[in-house]
Amino acid sequence: MKLANEIGIASTHLEALSFNPLELGVIQAVRQNGYLSRTDLSERLKYSRASLTPIFTRLVSLGILTEVGQGKSGGGRPPIMLGINGSLGYAAGVDIGATSIDIALADFTGQILERCSEQADVRIGPKQLLSRVKENLIKLLSKRGAGQDRLLAIGIGVPGPVEFATGLLIAPPLMPTWEGFPIKEEMRRSYHVASIVVDNDVNIMAKGEQKMGAGIGLDNFMFIKIGTGIGCGIISAGEVYRGSDGCAGDIGHICVDAEGPVCHCGNRGCLEFVSAGAAIAQKAVTGVQEGKSQFLADRIKAKDGVLTAKDVGEAAAAGDRLANEIVRESGKLIGGVLAGLVNFYNPRAIFIGGGVSNIGNQLLAAIRHTILSRATALSTIKLRVEYSELGESAGVHGAIHMALENVFIKTN
Amino acid sequence: MKLANEIGIASTHLEALSFNPLELGVIQAVRQNGYLSRTDLSERLKYSRASLTPIFTRLVSLGILTEVGQGKSGGGRPPIMLGINGSLGYAAGVDIGATSIDIALADFTGQILERCSEQADVRIGPKQLLSRVKENLIKLLSKRGAGQDRLLAIGIGVPGPVEFATGLLIAPPLMPTWEGFPIKEEMRRSYHVASIVVDNDVNIMAKGEQKMGAGIGLDNFMFIKIGTGIGCGIISAGEVYRGSDGCAGDIGHICVDAEGPVCHCGNRGCLEFVSAGAAIAQKAVTGVQEGKSQFLADRIKAKDGVLTAKDVGEAAAAGDRLANEIVRESGKLIGGVLAGLVNFYNPRAIFIGGGVSNIGNQLLAAIRHTILSRATALSTIKLRVEYSELGESAGVHGAIHMALENVFIKTN
Repeated sequence: MKLANEIGIASTHLEALSFNPLELGVIQAVRQNGYLSRTDLSERLKYSRASLTPIFTRLVSLGILTEVGQGKSGGGRPPIMLGINGSLGYAAGVDIGATSIDIALADFTGQILERCSEQADVRIGPKQLLSRVKENLIKLLSKRGAGQDRLLAIGIGVPGPVEFATGLLIAPPLMPTWEGFPIKEEMRRSYHVASIVVDNDVNIMAKGEQKMGAGIGLDNFMFIKIGTGIGCGIISAGEVYRGSDGCAGDIGHICVDAEGPVCHCGNRGCLEFVSAGAAIAQKAVTGVQEGKSQFLADRIKAKDGVLTAKDVGEAAAAGDRLANEIVRESGKLIGGVLAGLVNFYNPRAIFIGGGVSNIGNQLLAAIRHTILSRATALSTIKLRVEYSELGESAGVHGAIHMALENVFIKTN
Repeated sequence: MKLANEIGIASTHLEALSFNPLELGVIQAVRQNGYLSRTDLSERLKYSRASLTPIFTRLVSLGILTEVGQGKSGGGRPPIMLGINGSLGYAAGVDIGATSIDIALADFTGQILERCSEQADVRIGPKQLLSRVKENLIKLLSKRGAGQDRLLAIGIGVPGPVEFATGLLIAPPLMPTWEGFPIKEEMRRSYHVASIVVDNDVNIMAKGEQKMGAGIGLDNFMFIKIGTGIGCGIISAGEVYRGSDGCAGDIGHICVDAEGPVCHCGNRGCLEFVSAGAAIAQKAVTGVQEGKSQFLADRIKAKDGVLTAKDVGEAAAAGDRLANEIVRESGKLIGGVLAGLVNFYNPRAIFIGGGVSNIGNQLLAAIRHTILSRATALSTIKLRVEYSELGESAGVHGAIHMALENVFIKTN
């Protein structure tokens, strides 16, 4: 930890530093690749070693880059590799769900060091919920023996549409008291040197999958979160695509049945209203009333009349016919919408995550079957349709990486 | 034309030149803005005037940039503006449709100087069709008194999916003999100094609308071509989005009716099969057989039993009830698919073009109404849904600009 102490002074003044485009190019190339030799960087950036040398010297002396050992020799002496200095400071990823907070503390390479998770209802409002986030951050930092001034980057995912530049929630259906609340400013009161980003939870999950999961190396893919609602994070040309108003990926309200039931949004037959968690549970309750499943009838009795999508998943795993039908029907509806989006967007992969994705393999099988039979041949030849590799950790990983990407973007 | 002659030598060797990233940055910034002062460029690129001066000098002496007059004064002497040297050479835009070729010749700023258009069936095969393209290019160049070596950039739009890097068509349904045919190489035999790009026709139209039409200044929008089929060009973060296999935007085969008629692709109820040109004509024929329109019955008699979507549009304009119903139904089906895509993609605008878009305002009205009533509130607040401003010229404009954007991308 000697290096961390030595560079402590520099790091707390990170915000006061400024970098020219070439310096930012070097930092970005190193972060994207993990580590690169000086020659690699010269080749990638198409600048001579001579013109880059003062830049390498400055970035190493500021403690932003560090020499991380020897690379593979191309014949002569093996080159020394440059990497991001992990001990430059800490980065935090905060994944705020409708009913839970997940927080992870990482070093500056994005490696998670500490984690915690607790139940919290987002409807208690932003002030109260963010104060719980802050308390948890202090605890995690203190486990590493670090003060608040060592937290230099914070990424926060929230379950609603976000205007990314300001970090403000826009018309969030689940959490109306959060609309327009200055999350960044509220966090900056306690972490005044930190660079803070706020984004929609599914965008954050897509970023996590891209950086640490099954999306590594993919330019274009979709991350589908199936839970209470259904949302989609979009990676386009290696970047999160947010759309013109920050609400891209809001696929839960795509119509799948013009004559279907009226959704809370006012339209009929919205995808999430007929296929997500609540719909799965409701269909099971109806099926039990019609005497179609003894397994679920017993379960509903044991749970005082309340069934969840998780119960249906367990029934399906136990071979219950009603449960399997319900899960397959959801997969078919979701797959139908995704087939259309595959034609439009031609992604390399679709990763399925979120609470309801744990419901079993029938769901994935039905989604995949529907996409492959309904989308065009060319768009599906190389398409992967899989469960998220990171699962419930996609959010915190993504929040950390999105925060780190935004630390060095300031130029003078 | 003195300048053009003076720089003739340099321009024919354009391919032999190489530019560093900063030089390319200067060229790109000037092209995107039309013209900029040296101070503007220094501010935009965040490099000092001193470090940019040798770059300006080189680019002006090579005849790539030219001084194009005085800009607005910020107090002192009005600055001299730099622009792309329009007379550096010629650029051609070639829009190959299923049954027609449109060709335009432009200067190096993208200003169209000459145009021609002729009927040609794409099914005659690539060799024959491209030789007609070449003949027309020679004619257009000779009108300007220029030889073939003065054509330095060629953009070609084709009605099928294209692998952009190679310019090869992949599994094109309308033109199977074109699959894998080396269009770029075939053109380069005659225009060996030209930079050549080949792309799908709808991508090219989207690019045209972005550069010269209603899409100027918009980062994210969709261009919908409604003709024999239905396709979509996607602009994402200011660039054409082609997807992972070059087939992004293939929305014609999105399912709108799982119980609908079987499309030539083998699936049921594909959007284009139930709503595009052929479907409109077929519905009109059926309606006439059922005695629902005297206007169309007369028309069908006058045309020996053949009706087109254009006839239905004319009937609708004349107030024919059946025709209006058919057009509205198509608009509703197309609007329903677009509503889902608006939720997913959150574009700033949708522009409607292609032959069938001339069918009248009922079509646009129905598309717009359906999108606004079905997509989420947030995604439609600022959404524009309009006919293409460029109409049938979108293709050649886009082909020219796509070609020009690719002239200077080579680095050493």
